[in-house]
Amino acid sequence: MAGTDRKQHAPSGGPAIILVEPQLGENIGTAARAMLNCGLTDLRLVKPRDGWPSEKARSAASGADKVIEGARLYDSTAAAIADLARVYATTARPRGMIKRVATPRRAASEMRKATSLGQKIGVLFGRERTGLENDDIALADAVIAVPLNPGFASLNLAQAVLLVGYEWFQAADKTPANQLVVNETRPATKAELLNFFLQLEKRLVDSGFLRNVEKRPSMVRNIRNLFQRAGLTHQEVRTLHGIVSDLSALRERRK
Amino acid sequence: MAGTDRKQHAPSGGPAIILVEPQLGENIGTAARAMLNCGLTDLRLVKPRDGWPSEKARSAASGADKVIEGARLYDSTAAAIADLARVYATTARPRGMIKRVATPRRAASEMRKATSLGQKIGVLFGRERTGLENDDIALADAVIAVPLNPGFASLNLAQAVLLVGYEWFQAADKTPANQLVVNETRPATKAELLNFFLQLEKRLVDSGFLRNVEKRPSMVRNIRNLFQRAGLTHQEVRTLHGIVSDLSALRERRK
Repeated sequence: MAGTDRKQHAPSGGPAIILVEPQLGENIGTAARAMLNCGLTDLRLVKPRDGWPSEKARSAASGADKVIEGARLYDSTAAAIADLARVYATTARPRGMIKRVATPRRAASEMRKATSLGQKIGVLFGRERTGLENDDIALADAVIAVPLNPGFASLNLAQAVLLVGYEWFQAADKTPANQLVVNETRPATKAELLNFFLQLEKRLVDSGFLRNVEKRPSMVRNIRNLFQRAGLTHQEVRTLHGIVSDLSALRERRK
Repeated sequence: MAGTDRKQHAPSGGPAIILVEPQLGENIGTAARAMLNCGLTDLRLVKPRDGWPSEKARSAASGADKVIEGARLYDSTAAAIADLARVYATTARPRGMIKRVATPRRAASEMRKATSLGQKIGVLFGRERTGLENDDIALADAVIAVPLNPGFASLNLAQAVLLVGYEWFQAADKTPANQLVVNETRPATKAELLNFFLQLEKRLVDSGFLRNVEKRPSMVRNIRNLFQRAGLTHQEVRTLHGIVSDLSALRERRK
């Protein structure tokens, strides 16, 4: 899934991503890359263990320099979220705490609504090994927990950021779920398709393939359905005409 | 998002993940981890550059040993997909090719339907830097393209696998999108809540806070609404009773 266009277009207004006491600069970098993949740029770091700025972070960000350069440092989670109106904590199901738990998809939909009302929001991510502490979770309005294989649910930091950001992006994305990409050509018209069917069927009558007159109508329908399903383009119908002509000529020569 | 339970429960029947000429063992390992996160275990490798088995892959898999150990090696993409009924290729929008393009969410829904009919399916992922070659894409029924920031859409291999697997998992997951986790306690009954309201309002009348008789009804409603919104548990109502009693006693002592 390589992209070539490196212009770092990023829609603004997305949630702040707050990494609480991240340990490795490399993980901050891969998280920054995942953020920019999803159009997020507001990165906040609470007491990163190995200091800041970090050359390892920049290198691991694979070009998401804008996010790394814009990152802000804080002494506490409370300070990092002070300007926000709504905060989510990413964690497994909270234990011994009474808390609303949302899926990333639901949270993304809530976040889109909140930002459309001008509210600033943020998502907390904990330390690589141990996650968020309960005191951090208690600062949040709700928890985001990702439904995954219950026997193997541990995600690394960048992947957790990616899934939250991915749902944020999808919640406003207008890409059709399903489309035929036809590039330089266009879908065939029904007239072109029917013309091909008639040519093919004429040849198949000539060759004897459709010799059984009783079965011929259903065989013709089956063949037509097969090519209909392919959703042929103008160019592909021309190619098929050529294939049929060539194969017929071959048959003629062999006679 | 750390998980502690390492039992590697994995629903069977999910799509095969086919890595075509992956370069670094580490990337195979992180892809295997992402697979198991999503309950996928059928890993197929087409000519991995640095050979197989790979100690780096095993280490990067962070415990997804089952996937690494079960991985199968192939000499060609055609051989790797021979037993499958339907194959998707992950790539950016295909150029110069006429191909159906689906989002990961749409593809996941299609894959669930196909596997429920007993069809075996697979998803092709290309080399880390260059992605799938056109000849590989031509072997696939459709393309999966992930809608992401168009200015910065490049994902690493494990992240591409994660997003496809994540949607596969979500397509059958029954987790409520939104729920209140109350752990050992239970939601308060309306009687408990009303009892608290009455105690609070009595104290606020005594203290003079509700002295304005004209405004009192609307103030009472606002206060009740505030606590209603919190969705209180039985235990929390008891805590609030205690807080109100204690604050009132403090006020009494200060008089």
